[in-house]
Amino acid sequence: MSDAGKGNVVIGQSGGPTAVINQSLVGAVEVLKDSDDVGRIMGARHGVAGIVAENFVDLNDVDAAVLEAVANTPAAALGSSRDKPDEAYCRKIFEVFKKNDVKYFFYIGGNDSADAARIVNEMASASDYELRTFHIPKTIDNDLRVTDHCPGYGSAAKFVASAFMGDDRDSAALPGIKINVVMGRDAGWLTAASVLGNTDPVDGPHLVYVPEVEFSTEQFLADVREIYGRLGRCQIAVSEGIKDKTGTSVTVALAETLGHRVERDSHGNPQLSGTGALGDFLSDYLKANMKVPHESLRVRADTFGYLQRSFAGYASQIDRIEARQCGRKAAEYAMSGDLDGSVAMKRVESADYQIEYVRAELSDVARVTKPLPRDFINESGNGITEGFISYAAPLVGELPVLGKL
Amino acid sequence: MSDAGKGNVVIGQSGGPTAVINQSLVGAVEVLKDSDDVGRIMGARHGVAGIVAENFVDLNDVDAAVLEAVANTPAAALGSSRDKPDEAYCRKIFEVFKKNDVKYFFYIGGNDSADAARIVNEMASASDYELRTFHIPKTIDNDLRVTDHCPGYGSAAKFVASAFMGDDRDSAALPGIKINVVMGRDAGWLTAASVLGNTDPVDGPHLVYVPEVEFSTEQFLADVREIYGRLGRCQIAVSEGIKDKTGTSVTVALAETLGHRVERDSHGNPQLSGTGALGDFLSDYLKANMKVPHESLRVRADTFGYLQRSFAGYASQIDRIEARQCGRKAAEYAMSGDLDGSVAMKRVESADYQIEYVRAELSDVARVTKPLPRDFINESGNGITEGFISYAAPLVGELPVLGKL
Repeated sequence: MSDAGKGNVVIGQSGGPTAVINQSLVGAVEVLKDSDDVGRIMGARHGVAGIVAENFVDLNDVDAAVLEAVANTPAAALGSSRDKPDEAYCRKIFEVFKKNDVKYFFYIGGNDSADAARIVNEMASASDYELRTFHIPKTIDNDLRVTDHCPGYGSAAKFVASAFMGDDRDSAALPGIKINVVMGRDAGWLTAASVLGNTDPVDGPHLVYVPEVEFSTEQFLADVREIYGRLGRCQIAVSEGIKDKTGTSVTVALAETLGHRVERDSHGNPQLSGTGALGDFLSDYLKANMKVPHESLRVRADTFGYLQRSFAGYASQIDRIEARQCGRKAAEYAMSGDLDGSVAMKRVESADYQIEYVRAELSDVARVTKPLPRDFINESGNGITEGFISYAAPLVGELPVLGKL
Repeated sequence: MSDAGKGNVVIGQSGGPTAVINQSLVGAVEVLKDSDDVGRIMGARHGVAGIVAENFVDLNDVDAAVLEAVANTPAAALGSSRDKPDEAYCRKIFEVFKKNDVKYFFYIGGNDSADAARIVNEMASASDYELRTFHIPKTIDNDLRVTDHCPGYGSAAKFVASAFMGDDRDSAALPGIKINVVMGRDAGWLTAASVLGNTDPVDGPHLVYVPEVEFSTEQFLADVREIYGRLGRCQIAVSEGIKDKTGTSVTVALAETLGHRVERDSHGNPQLSGTGALGDFLSDYLKANMKVPHESLRVRADTFGYLQRSFAGYASQIDRIEARQCGRKAAEYAMSGDLDGSVAMKRVESADYQIEYVRAELSDVARVTKPLPRDFINESGNGITEGFISYAAPLVGELPVLGKL
């Protein structure tokens, strides 16, 4: 595409929101407002759905103080969407862009959003329509390729780490077995964050199960027995997306066993969050099989649910800053020349944690996701290594300092 | 009892921990360490269970920095207990006190703990044994009598309010019906706190159900239909302890319908936390009965679980201060003369929120609990009034400031 010249902007948010997704929105809007090349800045309500419905909110004149409050607000301020646009849907988006003289398209989301942006961009390209398209990464799952990590992950990881820290003290005070189910359909990044506050080998989580490792209920039982026998208690982190040896989600297999309908989103992904079924199942399984008198065995399960991505007032400071910067960078790239792509973070080799921002190709971010590397998981497949801790600790920032008697 | 003179101290923690229960422990220990009348300060591991087992930790020489870290740590640092001591159990406690020359007994807990303290104290009194007994209140349920509110409640309320704020933005971004199950077996204080961050009439929670109001699934359905029809979404707060018209817990009735064994603690209370069953049940009920096409109805349920009492790093500042002060006051009362009792907070009539600490009788705090007053619940029984907000807002302190587009 040739130079896009002055034109209008559409910016939207997509997929499961994060605690800092609005930082990216505000970062982009700040830069765009200052550009002479930009006309109207149109925020799409509910992502692609808002684009095809031409449901836009004018972002040119939003007061700076309101923008700042929005930046600090969890969840997509423009509204989000689970729609996965096909070719025809993308064609409609492109038609709306032409009609509204849209020359810049920013889409904040995960890998599916990068893919939608890629398709629309290719349509524009094929029609010689001047469009600059930038994907701005966000996901608590941390499963995007190319980028070192994803904006949104650090805040969710901070929530999970803090939750495990307090819950570990709680379950040390009233000992038993405590299962905590953490978000993560295919990747164990967020569940791995459960260990980040651990400062003592006897502290929980004592066992961590991620979707990257085949889950066996028999091995689970043996693992729990070993820890419980040794410490008199056991705190466990489980990804909602753990899969059995056939690759089937344990939650889905369980639901089907119980004759429940499994809800799927438009991406074909089964609905795993917003239900306590997996935790209750694992809890019942242990109660039935631990061979400890029922009365003396305390088993509890919590499913952390949507709080992991939406809890207000507890985002990671570094995550806030980086998410804002990813939004700014996308706008700067789009203003700087004939460029499309996604924003990625690259960790600079240095003593201290340091990031540089680079442009990635949309096609390199779209579709395929990035699992937790095997060397971040221990050999037994039920714990997390120091390698992961070195990687993730800077993204979370300061954690509470706890004491013991 | 006459003047107790120099003697040893036993201090213990009991029941469900809170985010600030260790503030009370540290407050008491600070005062006791400075007293010439006090010999050994013995922390009982796991409450009354640790007393009868003579499982004590020496608190005289704990470093001040460690104490401060412990104060800021959620959950009982000494360990907690669910034992409800009967007469024989209390006799054993009393024997251990005599054997160890214990002249001061501090028990941090709820109404059941106050009752255990009362029984032991009466045994001592009947035997002309010099014992000063103080109960130090704690409970996230806020259901103790006499005191204006309970240490631990403000922090749990802050967590719940912040969770609802972020979750409301999340469920506005991806609209549907969102049910959040909040702790509270008999009293709706904590569930009521779900409204504290609400700054706009269209924000959630749109419906609040507490155990004080008879729960009807039919009325629930009608309420949700009305809100969903009007706003296109609905965020709902439900106490885990909601009861049907027969006074039976909906969770218990549900479990029994499904043929599950209902676990009960030694107080005879059914186990309601640590399971997602109520949320899943209400969610399935709405999906089956809303008469909206399945595909277009998004219903999710989260059960906040133990995070409400144990989440690390997010306690209410005023709650921290008051919990510390309650511990200090108990020690000061016990040192000041022939006194037993519980510490209570009294709200001073003034423009600003202000508290004075007073002594209450153990018998006035023991056993009976305090429900949410009817005038804190709206007429329809599905919402919370301004009266509650005025009462509870100062206990929670600052909440995040969110923005909208």
